Amino acid sequence: MFHVTVRDHFMAAHSFRGDVFGPAQALHGATFVVDASFRRPELDEDGVVVDIGLASARLGEVLADLNYRNLDGHPEFKGANTTTEYLAKAIADRLAERIRAGGMGEGARGLTGLQVTLHESHVAWAGYERAL
Amino acid sequence: MFHVTVRDHFMAAHSFRGDVFGPAQALHGATFVVDASFRRPELDEDGVVVDIGLASARLGEVLADLNYRNLDGHPEFKGANTTTEYLAKAIADRLAERIRAGGMGEGARGLTGLQVTLHESHVAWAGYERAL
Amino acid sequence: MFHVTVRDHFMAAHSFRGDVFGPAQALHGATFVVDASFRRPELDEDGVVVDIGLASARLGEVLADLNYRNLDGHPEFKGANTTTEYLAKAIADRLAERIRAGGMGEGARGLTGLQVTLHESHVAWAGYERAL
Amino acid sequence: MFHVTVRDHFMAAHSFRGDVFGPAQALHGATFVVDASFRRPELDEDGVVVDIGLASARLGEVLADLNYRNLDGHPEFKGANTTTEYLAKAIADRLAERIRAGGMGEGARGLTGLQVTLHESHVAWAGYERAL
Amino acid sequence: MFHVTVRDHFMAAHSFRGDVFGPAQALHGATFVVDASFRRPELDEDGVVVDIGLASARLGEVLADLNYRNLDGHPEFKGANTTTEYLAKAIADRLAERIRAGGMGEGARGLTGLQVTLHESHVAWAGYERAL
Amino acid sequence: MFHVTVRDHFMAAHSFRGDVFGPAQALHGATFVVDASFRRPELDEDGVVVDIGLASARLGEVLADLNYRNLDGHPEFKGANTTTEYLAKAIADRLAERIRAGGMGEGARGLTGLQVTLHESHVAWAGYERAL
Repeated sequence: MFHVTVRDHFMAAHSFRGDVFGPAQALHGATFVVDASFRRPELDEDGVVVDIGLASARLGEVLADLNYRNLDGHPEFKGANTTTEYLAKAIADRLAERIRAGGMGEGARGLTGLQVTLHESHVAWAGYERAL
Repeated sequence: MFHVTVRDHFMAAHSFRGDVFGPAQALHGATFVVDASFRRPELDEDGVVVDIGLASARLGEVLADLNYRNLDGHPEFKGANTTTEYLAKAIADRLAERIRAGGMGEGARGLTGLQVTLHESHVAWAGYERAL
Repeated sequence: MFHVTVRDHFMAAHSFRGDVFGPAQALHGATFVVDASFRRPELDEDGVVVDIGLASARLGEVLADLNYRNLDGHPEFKGANTTTEYLAKAIADRLAERIRAGGMGEGARGLTGLQVTLHESHVAWAGYERAL
Repeated sequence: MFHVTVRDHFMAAHSFRGDVFGPAQALHGATFVVDASFRRPELDEDGVVVDIGLASARLGEVLADLNYRNLDGHPEFKGANTTTEYLAKAIADRLAERIRAGGMGEGARGLTGLQVTLHESHVAWAGYERAL
Repeated sequence: MFHVTVRDHFMAAHSFRGDVFGPAQALHGATFVVDASFRRPELDEDGVVVDIGLASARLGEVLADLNYRNLDGHPEFKGANTTTEYLAKAIADRLAERIRAGGMGEGARGLTGLQVTLHESHVAWAGYERAL
Repeated sequence: MFHVTVRDHFMAAHSFRGDVFGPAQALHGATFVVDASFRRPELDEDGVVVDIGLASARLGEVLADLNYRNLDGHPEFKGANTTTEYLAKAIADRLAERIRAGGMGEGARGLTGLQVTLHESHVAWAGYERAL
């Protein structure tokens, strides 16, 4: 199994609802360093997992919708706690849509899996892995 | 599949028995930077994999028993080579016990897997992965 | 010249005023990974630059006042843009006060300089260096 | 499942053929920081996944054949695009041969899997995972 | 003294002349992860060391001239060994020219120093520091 | 001012004397990841700060004397607390001796400064800087 991973980041404000979150119930923020990992069992005819330029561009678009925002007011996250693991899934699902729509090129249709990891600090990160 | 990972560390002395270890048969030591990764297929109702505060606290307790010690004299490691991979399993198993005992909260009972990685230097690390 | 550096972090929301900030004028947030570096020309009689336990504790206190907050409403930052470089100085100055007040022990009075670096992402960081 | 991972690197020139590569069709180069990860379900009698000294030595030999070279002229890569993911497989397969040939010791015959990851920059890496 | 640092990278081929370089006399390549650090004693009226967007853009332009190239054929480096330390100075000097020409905005005229560090691997880096 | 930095590591046991060290008074250990940074105002005729091969070799020799040892019994550290900052100076001084003795080549006589940083964990490091 092959993978190619690209890294980018976004910076957002948010707050959480629920006693489990303690002081993080207050409005605060985070830098999320995002690793998007694309998987497939065989390389395409160019010898790549995915066109890394297209993969980076699509990841950048997905993160642009989250960057420099207060996620508490984001229409797609209404009623949700935008935890690191929740955001990892949201980003993975949006990348999957773009792959299906051809946004990473025809070759990307050979991708079979996707993993997104969000680093929220030097001591904590979370991720979500799904099939394509 | 989701995961949340937290990082901590401990500093210990030890020595190894067996020719395969060469100069590491002498008493020496290591800083082990420990990543504990908790996995489950669905988030709980708060939108988390595990209460990250409880997870960090339990990891801290497990490492406190190893920190600032000579592992050669640790009663639980009698007769064992406390290699990085061996210690990864020891830490994972202790975390698993605490999860079962409720130490990471009721929500943590939904966890299905656990991975512990110990970084012993910038060029070597080892880990152990198990089901819960 | 010797130095000892300890790392911690905080997560905060904020916004900036001024066209130069572009989209960062909107409310957003960041994780700031903070490195506090203490300097002196000679070690004390214990062979240390500073009691690393006290240094970490004081840094933790300084960051606790910034963590899980919206810095736009912090009384000490009224009217200021809480840029990464601005926050580096604010943290350095607060650490310097604690050193002067004896909060890092008597030995810490031999410290001659202090540097604080805030990493706001994997591709940007800022810092402030001052004498003591 | 246990793993032990060792890190090394090599520096090589190469170029790519195919419009998908854009400016990377020109002769350029890269530092590849290589993580080789060895897996097995149980530790051997010494308490290790593999003799880390032998594993590092064999990885060093495999990379020595690629280091300080223009990969475009390497006889084994004739007609191939030596992408990061392609090179990950090439290195993994060469390590697998050495394991089979006994180059990592008799204990290494208990290894069941191998993963090789090549970091080409701070924002991109690729890997290949295979059974043994 | 304040600093702001931004990171980017380029990938290039080159070779060295001189016995001291051993096997690096052959055509090979490297990924250079570049940290450009801008310094000044006081912040400008916006509370920044430099407009980080302009600084990143100018660094990107400077590196674009080096990226995906064989530096042996670069007209500005004729007869020079493009060592990591040599390239650090070349990049620093080009950034200094852009600052002088106003390319980082009027505020950047308050910058007093510049440091450029090039990481060529996880175990080696080099840099150059100059006044402005 | 130019610098070239190389990284290596060693793993040692030790203990500290003095109440300030709390639990670290017990025998424990650490991995020290060591960065040795060599400085000079102008490059030599080959375009380098120092022969990086010789610098790495000399650093390796200095660390070999500390690796896989209990530093409490090292004859040169008798009566000293081998703190991270103390060890940074010890390593820097040994490197300086080797430079003076010609161990990094004739060109290395142009070096004017040396900095050694020891990383003892992901959250703490210390260093020593001296003239040559």
